[in-house]
Amino acid sequence: MDFFEAVEKRYSHKEGFLPTPMPREHLEKIARTGLLAPSGANMQSVRLVLLPDRAAIQPLCDIYPTMGLMTAPAVIALFTDGTTQNMPVNFEKEDYAAACENILLAATALDYAALWLDHPYFDEGNRKAAEKLLNAPEGYNLRVVIPLGLPDGAGSRRAKLPLNERMVYGKF
Amino acid sequence: MDFFEAVEKRYSHKEGFLPTPMPREHLEKIARTGLLAPSGANMQSVRLVLLPDRAAIQPLCDIYPTMGLMTAPAVIALFTDGTTQNMPVNFEKEDYAAACENILLAATALDYAALWLDHPYFDEGNRKAAEKLLNAPEGYNLRVVIPLGLPDGAGSRRAKLPLNERMVYGKF
Repeated sequence: MDFFEAVEKRYSHKEGFLPTPMPREHLEKIARTGLLAPSGANMQSVRLVLLPDRAAIQPLCDIYPTMGLMTAPAVIALFTDGTTQNMPVNFEKEDYAAACENILLAATALDYAALWLDHPYFDEGNRKAAEKLLNAPEGYNLRVVIPLGLPDGAGSRRAKLPLNERMVYGKF
Repeated sequence: MDFFEAVEKRYSHKEGFLPTPMPREHLEKIARTGLLAPSGANMQSVRLVLLPDRAAIQPLCDIYPTMGLMTAPAVIALFTDGTTQNMPVNFEKEDYAAACENILLAATALDYAALWLDHPYFDEGNRKAAEKLLNAPEGYNLRVVIPLGLPDGAGSRRAKLPLNERMVYGKF
């Protein structure tokens, strides 16, 4: 899919997914784009866990169920390795967000839907449980869990401010 | 350009640019992708200033000159509006990083080069000077300045870790 078409079509799919499995070739192609995103000082802090089927995903639902996690045929759990950040500025948030955006666009470009799911893991108990489940090494931080698949019906797009209210020429 | 091709071709262009002007249509098409990126709680914190020619860009060089700023025919200054963040979690970094990645990919998709330039503005004096220059309202935070244009020669791509060292199936 054309890059600009993917940007226009991407949305946050908060609804369910069809059970159609995702070929591993697609899952890896999507994941690869996340790892090719830029990173602060090229420290490449992003680490991914690919969950390619319901058996692998189900334990995440036991920690915190959402419609996406309960139905998605594939999930990518996105971590940052905090031990890469030997710099005055910590870039983990920038790194994971750029990688996550690539993954969301890549899913869209292959006609899948996806969701940047982070709120369950703002709860420390949920986050630590998920990190333990996925055997995260010391220093790895779970940032976002991305359910992926064919959408079960059309998702709802959220309203946006008029774009010309958010950009100006020259100065504010 | 195909989405996946844009991801593969994107790199951090730290060298100079040709003086060829960028049509405003291209600059706005690139900027639009930044504003269509996802944002935490859909609060759409990103704000852009488009600098479409050398006259508009030159004052930024007086604050901190880099090869990119001194030669680019166009620049996008990316801010977040901190007053949008009335939530327990602040999403400004995630918001700007996702928007910046869209902009970098969009530039690549139109055969331009671009750079995520942030380090000059980690210095508070430089950042405040640039915010004043661009007349940033109270609460707006300058996050990144993106020089854009046709590259003056091939840029150097930085080495990446083998991707299979950064992703696993099932668990770490």
